[in-house]
Amino acid sequence: MSLARMVEGPTAWLPAGSDAAIIVSSRIRLARNLEGAAFPGWAGEAECARLQKQMLSVLRASPALGEAPLVFDMETLTTIERDVLRERHLISIDLAHKGLGSGLVARTDESLSVMINEEDHLRLQAMRPGFSLDELWREINTLDDQIEEKLRYAYSHTLGYLTACPSNVGTGLRASVMLHIPALRLMDETEPVLKSLAAMDIAVRGLCGEGTDAAGNMFQISNQTTLGASETDLIRRLQAIVTEVATHEENARQRLIEERPARLRDVVGRAYGIVRHAGVLPSNEALDHLSALHLGNALGILKGTDIAVLNKLLLWTQPGHLQWQMGRPVPPEERDELRARMVAEALRSARLV
Amino acid sequence: MSLARMVEGPTAWLPAGSDAAIIVSSRIRLARNLEGAAFPGWAGEAECARLQKQMLSVLRASPALGEAPLVFDMETLTTIERDVLRERHLISIDLAHKGLGSGLVARTDESLSVMINEEDHLRLQAMRPGFSLDELWREINTLDDQIEEKLRYAYSHTLGYLTACPSNVGTGLRASVMLHIPALRLMDETEPVLKSLAAMDIAVRGLCGEGTDAAGNMFQISNQTTLGASETDLIRRLQAIVTEVATHEENARQRLIEERPARLRDVVGRAYGIVRHAGVLPSNEALDHLSALHLGNALGILKGTDIAVLNKLLLWTQPGHLQWQMGRPVPPEERDELRARMVAEALRSARLV
Repeated sequence: MSLARMVEGPTAWLPAGSDAAIIVSSRIRLARNLEGAAFPGWAGEAECARLQKQMLSVLRASPALGEAPLVFDMETLTTIERDVLRERHLISIDLAHKGLGSGLVARTDESLSVMINEEDHLRLQAMRPGFSLDELWREINTLDDQIEEKLRYAYSHTLGYLTACPSNVGTGLRASVMLHIPALRLMDETEPVLKSLAAMDIAVRGLCGEGTDAAGNMFQISNQTTLGASETDLIRRLQAIVTEVATHEENARQRLIEERPARLRDVVGRAYGIVRHAGVLPSNEALDHLSALHLGNALGILKGTDIAVLNKLLLWTQPGHLQWQMGRPVPPEERDELRARMVAEALRSARLV
Repeated sequence: MSLARMVEGPTAWLPAGSDAAIIVSSRIRLARNLEGAAFPGWAGEAECARLQKQMLSVLRASPALGEAPLVFDMETLTTIERDVLRERHLISIDLAHKGLGSGLVARTDESLSVMINEEDHLRLQAMRPGFSLDELWREINTLDDQIEEKLRYAYSHTLGYLTACPSNVGTGLRASVMLHIPALRLMDETEPVLKSLAAMDIAVRGLCGEGTDAAGNMFQISNQTTLGASETDLIRRLQAIVTEVATHEENARQRLIEERPARLRDVVGRAYGIVRHAGVLPSNEALDHLSALHLGNALGILKGTDIAVLNKLLLWTQPGHLQWQMGRPVPPEERDELRARMVAEALRSARLV
């Protein structure tokens, strides 16, 4: 399977069907390193390339990654291809900037993947739409075992798995859940909720990971600590907190309808009016309007369109995917015009009720 | 004629027909004071009331103000009535805040009026749609002569007419023109043009006079100096400058079509999308969108509506007129909802082409 075939399919971090869930998707990653080798940041390119080869042969043979996993060498990827992989949440911004000696291996359905020589030698990642941390944990644990049969991980009996950044030492696990919480923002309750999460040692990030803002009212929340608790304990704790935030959002949606119907109608109406008639639509603005339309759809204000269409736009309006579709690098100003046309066209049959 | 009948008719500062002129309207005012009486700011309320009576009997008998001019006593007006008069540019913000001893006399067509005991004893004002300073000068000069036959003005043979604020001493004349210059803003040229006006001793104000911002891309430009030149010289100078700014705007419209068609389409499209679908529309935002729709209409992007409709909305979406129409005081939040509905309804047949 080629990158082209993969890109045609749905991404693992967005529901492919008509599910308008508050809990958009779940993700677990494990940071692992090879015993006796310098961390990627300290090893030279040649050493990284040697290790990459060694890891690749093991990963290709891991049954968990499927029969013919996709294998990417960062060095050979174009900027657009890197952007596409990043927008599909398969690689991090850091890996996207790397070259020789780093890469990615992914199941063709994108549900299981491994970044090679990002910050750590191996970053295993499992990802699925919806609230599926238990399932992801079983899958990533299986892959982890399959790798460990062939490679010796850097491991300390007192500390656990050793990682390039001390914050990942121990389990090396980060479990995260992507939440879509537009009603909390419209009720001016996002800030207090996020603050209470920080107090519970939970990290909050934007749609595109570390250092990104919360465009489209999408937030990734994840465990901050990786040490001193078992993997399943960390996951269970996150599950409880996610459930609580999702309940807050559900309540906020109900109160929005009852207490601020004009605000709700205004935000959905403006989003609708703008995506239908704007001539220029920057990427982050598109995410915000799609978020409002999602909410409008969930609350019965917007008809004639489908969550699957909105989710597809969420992915395909992003710069990498948009340029991929055009088959050429497109300057930002032209992208904003193309994006405006793409969204208006896709939502032609949508209507406010 | 009652205030109610007057409010039903067109306002003198907006074209009533389908004229989408860059030069929206013209206005001349003369500041005059009575000889031997303290300026209103120094006279007590009782003295002001006495002078008001004296001036009123003269004004009622001035043929230039028509057979049965409208006469308002500020003390007796409700807040909504004051707002309505202000939005029709018949009274200033200062006069709107005054009570006993101050008032307004106006021709029923609003083209000629006199504020009584604002900053000066008399503020004569002539106002018409379009570029009509010569005509206005003849009219206001006639009224001025008719008053001077009956009242002695405070006048110095060396300085000219004496006024409460030294900046008005001399002719006491301010000629101003309201310009609608949206293309200059879209071409990012508003600032340089306004700066060059300041260098030419020309004052620039927003839509609603001193201290207001330029909502709706409407600017009033007027002479800064009132001393050392004749009235007709001051007017001729302003006419030349206004003509130049209007030409700039015309050129900017042409270049906008040629150089930034996407930006033009975006601004008009967003304005259209928002006014049609927003649930809440604050006053200044409405002015900005109506400005964009005006431009869209002038440049052939917006069809199915009429400049007369847009101009009517420009007036009737303002807080005073909106509350007048509802027949009751309406709190700001509810006004924003009513305004959104009013505009959406009035532009139901409009469409982008």
